[in-house]
Amino acid sequence: MSKVKKLKDIGELKILSWIHSELSGQTKSRDDVVLGVGDDAAVLKIEQTEQLVITVDSLVEGVHFSLDYFTPEDVGWKALAVNLSDLAAMFAKPVAVLVSLAMPSSLPFMWVKRFYRGMLEVANKFGVAVVGGDTSSSPSSIFISVSAIGVNSASVPLRSTAEVGDAVIATGTFGDSAIGLKLLREAGAQAVKRSRVLRRLAMRQLRPTPRVNEALIAASTGLCKCAIDVSDGLASDLSKIAQLSGVRICLWLEKIPISKEAIEASKRFSYSPLEMALTGGEDYELIMTTPKAYASSLCEAIEKECGTKCTIIGEVESGEPLVYGVDSNGKLIEVAGGYEHFVS
Amino acid sequence: MSKVKKLKDIGELKILSWIHSELSGQTKSRDDVVLGVGDDAAVLKIEQTEQLVITVDSLVEGVHFSLDYFTPEDVGWKALAVNLSDLAAMFAKPVAVLVSLAMPSSLPFMWVKRFYRGMLEVANKFGVAVVGGDTSSSPSSIFISVSAIGVNSASVPLRSTAEVGDAVIATGTFGDSAIGLKLLREAGAQAVKRSRVLRRLAMRQLRPTPRVNEALIAASTGLCKCAIDVSDGLASDLSKIAQLSGVRICLWLEKIPISKEAIEASKRFSYSPLEMALTGGEDYELIMTTPKAYASSLCEAIEKECGTKCTIIGEVESGEPLVYGVDSNGKLIEVAGGYEHFVS
Repeated sequence: MSKVKKLKDIGELKILSWIHSELSGQTKSRDDVVLGVGDDAAVLKIEQTEQLVITVDSLVEGVHFSLDYFTPEDVGWKALAVNLSDLAAMFAKPVAVLVSLAMPSSLPFMWVKRFYRGMLEVANKFGVAVVGGDTSSSPSSIFISVSAIGVNSASVPLRSTAEVGDAVIATGTFGDSAIGLKLLREAGAQAVKRSRVLRRLAMRQLRPTPRVNEALIAASTGLCKCAIDVSDGLASDLSKIAQLSGVRICLWLEKIPISKEAIEASKRFSYSPLEMALTGGEDYELIMTTPKAYASSLCEAIEKECGTKCTIIGEVESGEPLVYGVDSNGKLIEVAGGYEHFVS
Repeated sequence: MSKVKKLKDIGELKILSWIHSELSGQTKSRDDVVLGVGDDAAVLKIEQTEQLVITVDSLVEGVHFSLDYFTPEDVGWKALAVNLSDLAAMFAKPVAVLVSLAMPSSLPFMWVKRFYRGMLEVANKFGVAVVGGDTSSSPSSIFISVSAIGVNSASVPLRSTAEVGDAVIATGTFGDSAIGLKLLREAGAQAVKRSRVLRRLAMRQLRPTPRVNEALIAASTGLCKCAIDVSDGLASDLSKIAQLSGVRICLWLEKIPISKEAIEASKRFSYSPLEMALTGGEDYELIMTTPKAYASSLCEAIEKECGTKCTIIGEVESGEPLVYGVDSNGKLIEVAGGYEHFVS
């Protein structure tokens, strides 16, 4: 059996050379990429009418992912997808990304190749050019930082512009990703992959789908002035809108979309799917607010164009900036929580 | 004595809130920043005539810096400066940066505040807006990734466009940063700071000056089509130009600019200042090539406008892509080397 080639057997120059040849192939036919990977920086050309939307998000091994259940392709996919989700929350069409990768020298070179394979898969799916990278050694954990650049030629929806009387609408379903993570941690990747239901939940954690197309449809309708993507949790991210917009948000708990997989898995394990939907993070769904009169047509446009479920889940009220839930009996329930770094 | 407040005592939300208030103050009066830190992404407006130049560079604790001799301000300064240096090598005016920071929860909150102080110092010096950030926990080391965005409205100098007959010119002096690092490692920060000469060398390592203004002057002359910034070492970075341009580069060894501090320190320690100038990295000086007839006027323009020494250090020849040196006796010397990640 041949020895696994590690980064220290290959050296930075050969690793960079491999990355350059992979990436230059991906960008060479694009008009908007004047210069891709391989020089001191990349060069892009954008239209004058467009505003530039830029964001950065990192994935740290042992914090955001574990090699126990993330394949290298999953890590590459997710590192890019979470950034595209941030652009989607600003109704921006993604254009290009830069990748910074710090890795221990004991990591197999194959890991890097497979990481890029996963990243290029999602990049190609959404028409994004990977135009640059920075590779360095790391004492132990893998650190990945992706910066994404997109363009918005309409108006940018903010967290601070929800208005009293708006309806709150959401794409997709909630809680799947957090349930998927619980399953991967508790039952292990092998057990999860043997069940179709559990695998679908796990994939929401491992390979989230950024709501890029849904955002562009919402942007084209001009009906929505406030949006956020759900990374920390539905309740937590809604409460950012509440605080920044100075409004109270009422969530209709029975309307919160929960997948049939989440419900089925919850019968076999001991947790509440509603609680997971409210507090579990990393769904990477979009939440938007829009005047009530437009809410149904916005949902219909997204469903028709993208085939993505879109649901009215609550409304914006005047009052102290907070989020509360109402169940089907009209009972009020306090909702809060979400993931916070550094606090263990 | 009051307890030192660590990140785990503060929590992510309060840390982010502090970062937001620091950064929104820095960007609020800028026309080109439509939306700064605090939402899902930042929004910029740039002119149609301008090409967008983007780059990313990371600093990893234990690889790129040690807390033994880098103050938090030094780390913040250097994390941004090395990116501005990459933009300078593309003759781009820096506009905005995004910062991604992963830190152990045991780190004092004061470290983060001082890190941003150093970063904002260099940002303000070069008119750069810090428009976004991502903060997360890290299992052990500090990991910093900065992405920088600049604009170039002229033409972008590449590594691949050196031409036979060009002169090679360089800003500043070489080897200081690597000597500074040696001194900090071997003699320690306290000893180094007691000597004016040693401190100046150390500062080249801790707080490199990106050649932003020199690059913009060079761009305005229109005389230079090839440039690189020296991060891996003079010989190593010149050999990238040689390989990508398919040319041989002759370095006039006695012309390589070496500071009087480097020469003075070399008398007290056992190393060759010329060898440090050739192979030591992180000088963040610019190397450019230009037709010989223009070399002196390009140097003069930079010296006059920026007060930065600019020297003709060699010439571009036809031949096998490599770099060689000629000493004052006409003797040929092979030059190579430079830092490579992963290879220990």
